[in-house]
Amino acid sequence: MDMHKLTRELNVNNEAKIVLVVADGLGGLPMEPGGPTELEAAATPYLDELARHNTCGLMYPVLPGITPGSGPGHLGLFGYDPLQYAIGRGVLEALGIDFDLGPDDVAVRGNFCTVDGEGLITDRRAGRIPTETCAKLVEKLRAIRLPDVQLFVEPVRDYRFVIVFRAAGLEGEVEDTDPQRVGARPLEPKARHAGAQRTAELAAQFVHQAREILRHDRPANMLTLRGFAKRPDIPTMRDVYGLRAAAIAVYPMYRGLARLVGMTLPARPLQLEDQLNALRRHWDEFDFFFLHYKYTDSTGEDGNFPGKVKHLEHLDAQIPTLLSLKPAVLIVTGDHSTPCRLRSHSWHPVPVLLAAETCRPDRVSGFGERECLHGGLGQFEARYLLPLALAHAGRLQKYGA
Amino acid sequence: MDMHKLTRELNVNNEAKIVLVVADGLGGLPMEPGGPTELEAAATPYLDELARHNTCGLMYPVLPGITPGSGPGHLGLFGYDPLQYAIGRGVLEALGIDFDLGPDDVAVRGNFCTVDGEGLITDRRAGRIPTETCAKLVEKLRAIRLPDVQLFVEPVRDYRFVIVFRAAGLEGEVEDTDPQRVGARPLEPKARHAGAQRTAELAAQFVHQAREILRHDRPANMLTLRGFAKRPDIPTMRDVYGLRAAAIAVYPMYRGLARLVGMTLPARPLQLEDQLNALRRHWDEFDFFFLHYKYTDSTGEDGNFPGKVKHLEHLDAQIPTLLSLKPAVLIVTGDHSTPCRLRSHSWHPVPVLLAAETCRPDRVSGFGERECLHGGLGQFEARYLLPLALAHAGRLQKYGA
Repeated sequence: MDMHKLTRELNVNNEAKIVLVVADGLGGLPMEPGGPTELEAAATPYLDELARHNTCGLMYPVLPGITPGSGPGHLGLFGYDPLQYAIGRGVLEALGIDFDLGPDDVAVRGNFCTVDGEGLITDRRAGRIPTETCAKLVEKLRAIRLPDVQLFVEPVRDYRFVIVFRAAGLEGEVEDTDPQRVGARPLEPKARHAGAQRTAELAAQFVHQAREILRHDRPANMLTLRGFAKRPDIPTMRDVYGLRAAAIAVYPMYRGLARLVGMTLPARPLQLEDQLNALRRHWDEFDFFFLHYKYTDSTGEDGNFPGKVKHLEHLDAQIPTLLSLKPAVLIVTGDHSTPCRLRSHSWHPVPVLLAAETCRPDRVSGFGERECLHGGLGQFEARYLLPLALAHAGRLQKYGA
Repeated sequence: MDMHKLTRELNVNNEAKIVLVVADGLGGLPMEPGGPTELEAAATPYLDELARHNTCGLMYPVLPGITPGSGPGHLGLFGYDPLQYAIGRGVLEALGIDFDLGPDDVAVRGNFCTVDGEGLITDRRAGRIPTETCAKLVEKLRAIRLPDVQLFVEPVRDYRFVIVFRAAGLEGEVEDTDPQRVGARPLEPKARHAGAQRTAELAAQFVHQAREILRHDRPANMLTLRGFAKRPDIPTMRDVYGLRAAAIAVYPMYRGLARLVGMTLPARPLQLEDQLNALRRHWDEFDFFFLHYKYTDSTGEDGNFPGKVKHLEHLDAQIPTLLSLKPAVLIVTGDHSTPCRLRSHSWHPVPVLLAAETCRPDRVSGFGERECLHGGLGQFEARYLLPLALAHAGRLQKYGA
């Protein structure tokens, strides 16, 4: 079922604002049997109060058992079927630095790394060099020339950068060169099908020239490539929901993802307080706001339970400010679970809280995984969240006579 | 997934009777925070007793966030994917008055309305003229002649009537002429694509002649047209489930909908007690009975909370009579929610109660929205209700070896 066929047909415009707060990696697990999850351990009085008076549930980011990356996780939240639209890592990184990707462009993410005298990787992130060092190295790589293709090399953050190959007829299906472990040699770029052969060859030539250029640098004396991809053809949120949508996000990947579905990025915030200020400043210009909060995921990936709890509490403290703007619909959820215990994304369903005047009451007494199990939203696929938000905002007409 | 492929393959016949009671617009909302919904407020001892000993849940009529009209709402209950089969308003009205729609017919609903000296609508329902007045006006409109098309004009109820255009090659995709507000002029019928151009022209000529005929009538001196459509090609319940199905409904639209899926209409009841008598009278002739109860929806649309409560209690009082017939499966649910607070259909999931000897117990202690959240049926799409009913009636064989 194409949900967007329905939302295109049924959406109407009004004054109602929708705010989607994504605490990245929100869902968690107890560290030991009998213990609380991160969200259950956190003191979140404002979220608890919202949960009591509104409606909660749990969402499958993709389908039961499927652990999503950030791309599919967010696409689902934006109401796009994450199985229908696949987004390569290179594309996300390119969009996140405001790179205007064309339909013929193949983007790939580059990671500066360290190799030893035999070419074996000793540090996959080159000691996490600072962004300024990354920019200087990228500047050197811009000397690379390849036949009949326009090349762009752009720094992103820390040891990460983006390469864009622009030429008619290029395809994106090329394997990563990152072997994903130290002690191994970077792999050769390999085409997954004959149509992507030219891209693989261009990438191999790029790597060859880059190796010569970086040979005497340290600690970053080599690079790996991940996520060759072309921009997928995704309709905008304006198209499918009639929403003027804004993303207020700090990190490039999430900004890029938002831009991919046509969101505007009205600010370049550096932290949560900036994000709330930006929300207030641009309140009248948009119908929908996506506010991304990264630290619940990064602390989860680090296995830092107290850290994730602290960041949840920090987010909770901003809820009164959010409510003071009087959104018609306020949603707080995550793009996936990142339990500290697993130190990685997981497949566990994600708590979701939807606050609106049209909520039907349930028996939830606070915002947490166990409580959400009894929520009025039940358990559902994340791609239905946005239609629910539109409904509560009065932005969907009746279907059929 | 085409559920009907499965049910066609797996259905078997037996003596078990299934009764589906549809309290139209059953689901509700509290009028103020902390209050009960209509169903929670109503004293429904018989339904509560049934809920305690059987199984409950909540159904999405179409999909989360989607508010259905009566057509899709009922199709879902009958086990038809409401997104696969679209039913125009004109078709529903025509079927509801026993009009035998052919495959080439385009039906449209007419509303008598009142316009002022400048042609602007002053009452979209012409003061809700009685059905007899409607019939007299329709008689006058039967004088209209159009080239190369057979015309039928039939009264329905109050200010509503049906026009059927019969000619080979007509298409139904024509815009409504009802501007949906007073102070506006009725719109011109506009084809949505070139193939429907002839229908649009015929409709325009019809309106032109009708305007002359009605000019000196009052209060109904004009008409608007809504829901041009051809009959969709829907397999019957006999085809897909092997059920001899009967509809026992008072109102035309629901009778029409039932006929569309091949149900027989063995009676013309006027009220709930007639419906129960008809059920008893025809008990041996059918396997499946659809009993439609309108007043929970109409009171919802009127925002009449005590009225909706009263009608729920009236329905509850008939449960012992229903049970005395010993159906193998008794279902009580709605086709959508119509919360008094919203005075309209809504997207909120609909409580459902399924009573059969094969129910697995849950922890529900009464029939209401909050209780149903803990029901054994969980939350599911309405189109799965009929397969569940067939299963509990022993009418579905095992799938696969």
